[in-house]
Amino acid sequence: MSPAPERPATVAEVGEAGVLAVLSGPGDAYTGDPVGNGDDAAVLGPAAATVVTTDMLVEGTHFRLDLTTWRDIGRRAVAQNVSDVLAMGADCSRVLVALAVPGETTMEQIRELAAGIHGEAARSGAVVVGGDLTSAHLVVVSVTAIGTLPEGARPLRIDGAAPGDRVALTGEPGRSAAGLALLLAGHADGPLQQAHRVPVPPIGSGRAARLAGATSLTDVSDGLMRDLSGMARASGVAADLVVDALPVDPRLGEAAAILGRPDPGAQVMDWILDGGEDHGLLGTFPTDSDVPAGFTVIGTIRDGDPGEVSLDGHPRTPGGWDSARGAN
Amino acid sequence: MSPAPERPATVAEVGEAGVLAVLSGPGDAYTGDPVGNGDDAAVLGPAAATVVTTDMLVEGTHFRLDLTTWRDIGRRAVAQNVSDVLAMGADCSRVLVALAVPGETTMEQIRELAAGIHGEAARSGAVVVGGDLTSAHLVVVSVTAIGTLPEGARPLRIDGAAPGDRVALTGEPGRSAAGLALLLAGHADGPLQQAHRVPVPPIGSGRAARLAGATSLTDVSDGLMRDLSGMARASGVAADLVVDALPVDPRLGEAAAILGRPDPGAQVMDWILDGGEDHGLLGTFPTDSDVPAGFTVIGTIRDGDPGEVSLDGHPRTPGGWDSARGAN
Repeated sequence: MSPAPERPATVAEVGEAGVLAVLSGPGDAYTGDPVGNGDDAAVLGPAAATVVTTDMLVEGTHFRLDLTTWRDIGRRAVAQNVSDVLAMGADCSRVLVALAVPGETTMEQIRELAAGIHGEAARSGAVVVGGDLTSAHLVVVSVTAIGTLPEGARPLRIDGAAPGDRVALTGEPGRSAAGLALLLAGHADGPLQQAHRVPVPPIGSGRAARLAGATSLTDVSDGLMRDLSGMARASGVAADLVVDALPVDPRLGEAAAILGRPDPGAQVMDWILDGGEDHGLLGTFPTDSDVPAGFTVIGTIRDGDPGEVSLDGHPRTPGGWDSARGAN
Repeated sequence: MSPAPERPATVAEVGEAGVLAVLSGPGDAYTGDPVGNGDDAAVLGPAAATVVTTDMLVEGTHFRLDLTTWRDIGRRAVAQNVSDVLAMGADCSRVLVALAVPGETTMEQIRELAAGIHGEAARSGAVVVGGDLTSAHLVVVSVTAIGTLPEGARPLRIDGAAPGDRVALTGEPGRSAAGLALLLAGHADGPLQQAHRVPVPPIGSGRAARLAGATSLTDVSDGLMRDLSGMARASGVAADLVVDALPVDPRLGEAAAILGRPDPGAQVMDWILDGGEDHGLLGTFPTDSDVPAGFTVIGTIRDGDPGEVSLDGHPRTPGGWDSARGAN
């Protein structure tokens, strides 16, 4: 008889200190900060300006444990916060994590989650400087991301777009929404599904937009139309998108076909215009500026009803995601 | 016939923007920060050193909606984070909130929660500079608190206690644990119950401890014995508490009697030594320093096994709270 396989250790058995040690990650991530991990709070060194944002992932709302991995949950929780720091024209330098998990969560799952958190933080040039652990009947990962702006640098707000500015975007929108549709239809693997599980923020592109003189910048979390409309409303302007200029991942058409959509072209357009959670950067640039590499010009800012967005000249109401109401 | 009372509006009906507007609070809380609420992230002005911490409250784990109020949940979520900032020797200046609530949560409940968050932030001299909202099947409030240390100020870590230092504490420990015991036994109201619902961090005492030359400082969240032991272990020293020096709220004895405990004195001592979530400040001060007002000297640091804490000379194993395992 072979010995029974060892039952994996759980969070409840290992206790807070053991779990936090795994979440804290390697001790060699020296930041030069006065106080890093393991005290009541972290203390960060001098900064000309500090960018700070927080965002929460909740099991059942943002992910299902049967459709993703613990590592990808960690990566996504960090990535969506990093994205908000980039959208101010900054780079992310530190990450804090507050975690709630059931006591029966295994240490192997915690190690996977921590690997995702630290891997994504490292990809962004950031280190994890603090954590909190609590128990709950479901998994909640709340991340705070912090970045710095150099002396004299202007943060990129959402209310600076001006008539004549070009509208530009990183990446190909709609991939996350198409990936979610494939996942829900039982197609577990593929690049679109992975784009939904873990958005990949364009590290460096926020800073590049700032240096290029961008007038506004935001990350597309609720959908291209909705976020552009919000930016235009805050800036007191309208925007016009050019359909032929929109970058289209050809996999979107394939996904619409796989899913048997009656009008695949319309489905692709819906994903591109209203699909959320791609976390690309959406910016506005003066006509005389060089739009940085990685951005595609997709339209222009014009005078008009604040927040109105037209498509080849025809006004269109944003769909997209509302965190309190769900999909519109 | 009188008209039917108007059904209160819910979060799902009002939508994200409306809820976030309530959570953001009054627009007149001007901080001088380059970017406050309403953008992708907040941008804080120059700082010599930034103190940052995060902590999460989860329904069912930290509170029950039938035993507390929405206002008190907001106050507690902020207070326990402020406490960690004070414990570094700093004052809290900004607060960020990530909130998950069911869609049927009413706007009146959100207003109460926001009133608690903003009221407690204001009590600490802090303003709310960012928020995130998501839906979930239970209520989760995750707060990030930020403070600053002036140029050249030394943060108060947990690993600086030295033999000969006096151990001192703010407030009267055990009140939160006794209040919880009363609540669970069906006694809804009273000062101990309120101490459990909302801890009251001693604003200004962290800074006072730093200016008085404290060698270590932490907040008592997991129990006096456990947190003192952790501080002693990190510092490579042992500690001795003097039982007669411990500050005792007389209500603890009354609570033990009301609850019919067979040995009320032993119950009171357990609450004082192992009760968590009072969030008083626990510090160590050199013999030649003036312990600031609000602190009570309760013992001394000595050479010994790192982390050992004795009571009138007799070693005692800490009980208290482990966030992964629950009560020991």
